[in-house]
Amino acid sequence: MSITLNPSGQAMPLVGFGLWKVPRESCADTVYNAIKTGYRLFDGAQDYGNEKEAGEGVRRAIADGLVKREELFITSKLWNTFHSKEHVLEMTKFSLDAWGLDYFDLWLIHFPIAQKYVPPSERYPPALLYDVEAGTMAFEDVPIAETWAEMEKAVELGLVKNIGISNFAGALIIDLLRYAKIPPAVLQIEHHPYLTQPQIVALTRQRGIAITAYSSFGPQSFLEMSHPVATKITTLLKTPLIEEIAAAHGKSSGQVLLRWATQRGIAVIPKSNSPHRLAENLNHVDFDLTEEELGKISGLDAQIRFNDPADWPGKIYIFA
Amino acid sequence: MSITLNPSGQAMPLVGFGLWKVPRESCADTVYNAIKTGYRLFDGAQDYGNEKEAGEGVRRAIADGLVKREELFITSKLWNTFHSKEHVLEMTKFSLDAWGLDYFDLWLIHFPIAQKYVPPSERYPPALLYDVEAGTMAFEDVPIAETWAEMEKAVELGLVKNIGISNFAGALIIDLLRYAKIPPAVLQIEHHPYLTQPQIVALTRQRGIAITAYSSFGPQSFLEMSHPVATKITTLLKTPLIEEIAAAHGKSSGQVLLRWATQRGIAVIPKSNSPHRLAENLNHVDFDLTEEELGKISGLDAQIRFNDPADWPGKIYIFA
Repeated sequence: MSITLNPSGQAMPLVGFGLWKVPRESCADTVYNAIKTGYRLFDGAQDYGNEKEAGEGVRRAIADGLVKREELFITSKLWNTFHSKEHVLEMTKFSLDAWGLDYFDLWLIHFPIAQKYVPPSERYPPALLYDVEAGTMAFEDVPIAETWAEMEKAVELGLVKNIGISNFAGALIIDLLRYAKIPPAVLQIEHHPYLTQPQIVALTRQRGIAITAYSSFGPQSFLEMSHPVATKITTLLKTPLIEEIAAAHGKSSGQVLLRWATQRGIAVIPKSNSPHRLAENLNHVDFDLTEEELGKISGLDAQIRFNDPADWPGKIYIFA
Repeated sequence: MSITLNPSGQAMPLVGFGLWKVPRESCADTVYNAIKTGYRLFDGAQDYGNEKEAGEGVRRAIADGLVKREELFITSKLWNTFHSKEHVLEMTKFSLDAWGLDYFDLWLIHFPIAQKYVPPSERYPPALLYDVEAGTMAFEDVPIAETWAEMEKAVELGLVKNIGISNFAGALIIDLLRYAKIPPAVLQIEHHPYLTQPQIVALTRQRGIAITAYSSFGPQSFLEMSHPVATKITTLLKTPLIEEIAAAHGKSSGQVLLRWATQRGIAVIPKSNSPHRLAENLNHVDFDLTEEELGKISGLDAQIRFNDPADWPGKIYIFA
């Protein structure tokens, strides 16, 4: 199952494998095994610190004849420190080199946040940058329009097939669409029953942008980071409503949460270290929830956002 | 009481008079009497349809010696149909002419929405434009950056003293700050205890932007428009908590709602047709709420937005 992307017409798998927090040491094997299980989409980022290893897994799978490059869909994301016109293309090539690939299928602006450049020779991945004196982050005044123009060049140069955005919202997306020569194919956002964002979903439908949901299991992804809200709230996987619906369909809670997204045309990129879950997540699309069940799950919305740069030390209110 | 604006250093009164929905026929007298009562700030817009009459009231008050021009603070707003570089300055002058003024103290982009130009000779105010065939609005791809550059020229030409934005949020404000040569002095937003927007408030504090709240009484302003939510929800003026706090201070509910904003440094622009309320609103700053009371009022937050272009026929998701 896939989504046809605008404007390229390329198919993006509805279910992929998210590489966030996949440890560097096991990443190559994880990717290789995921391909063996049937995964065709991998969602990485400069910030995840495992580009080289993910690429190793991909190349080994290709070398072993498990899959061809053109059957895979590789997404990566430009980090905040590389937004300026001097760095976007250079760092696109840098990441392609790290992966050992000729092109990305999808290349996203990771956040609508522009931070001070740090050369990769100095620190990579650059992660969050703090101005130690001020106790804040070091920003750089690079407008999104400047970054987007470079993303478009990456398409023209054949470095990437599609471009998109992540963690963008409302009027900023609308503004981008006003000057984009190539409109964003995909918006990647935090999306789960505790944060359903119906207006964002409606906006992307209206404008022909595909959505990829991250953190489909809600607080689950943030437990290991001791997120203050995630550790207190009932995990979505154990929510009575989700468990009930899962039991009714003979499925797992995780599969219900993923299906709630994919049945509404929203792509997902779950991650798992367990081979069993890996297969379960990939193959979750063989059943349908009823309209009533979809509605009840959406009714869990509590507008709880776990990944908000307003909570970072620099307090960046991109979702205000 | 006033707020010092960035970067001009000009003082903006903390309490003003909002001209939205002030009928054209009575507008000149309303403005004249408001000046007599002591109002010094008037908040108008091209869209309100009463620029000429508001200007008449102002000029009559100046002619009668009630006030000098420089003691007044006149705000107006550029409508959605005039965003393009061909029209911003022309329509700034057009509105100054309508008011009969040499300059505005504050000139705002009314919405981050760019609609198709209609010459004022054809229809003015242009209000919302519908593409009758499609049942949608006619948009124009004018980036905010283009409009803002013209707003800056209006300052340079002396047509306006300060420039700002209205109904902007989060990442779009942050993006504007990246390319603005003159940063926005003011953000005008819907703000009341049912829609407290703490992140927007924090963002503007962080960036030195003053906030003007509109619809301080919440649903009240939307009742006459038969707004579906406004007509169902308990009006803030009759909310037990607000009535209780008002009684404790010997004030009216309206005064408590205004003080909740102004005590936190947020300017307000209430409107009233009653001379009694007019004075009451203006003079509401002679008491302080306790920290606990401020907190309790903020606790009414229900993220209910009454003025959302997503509810317009064109469904514009600027707050998504």
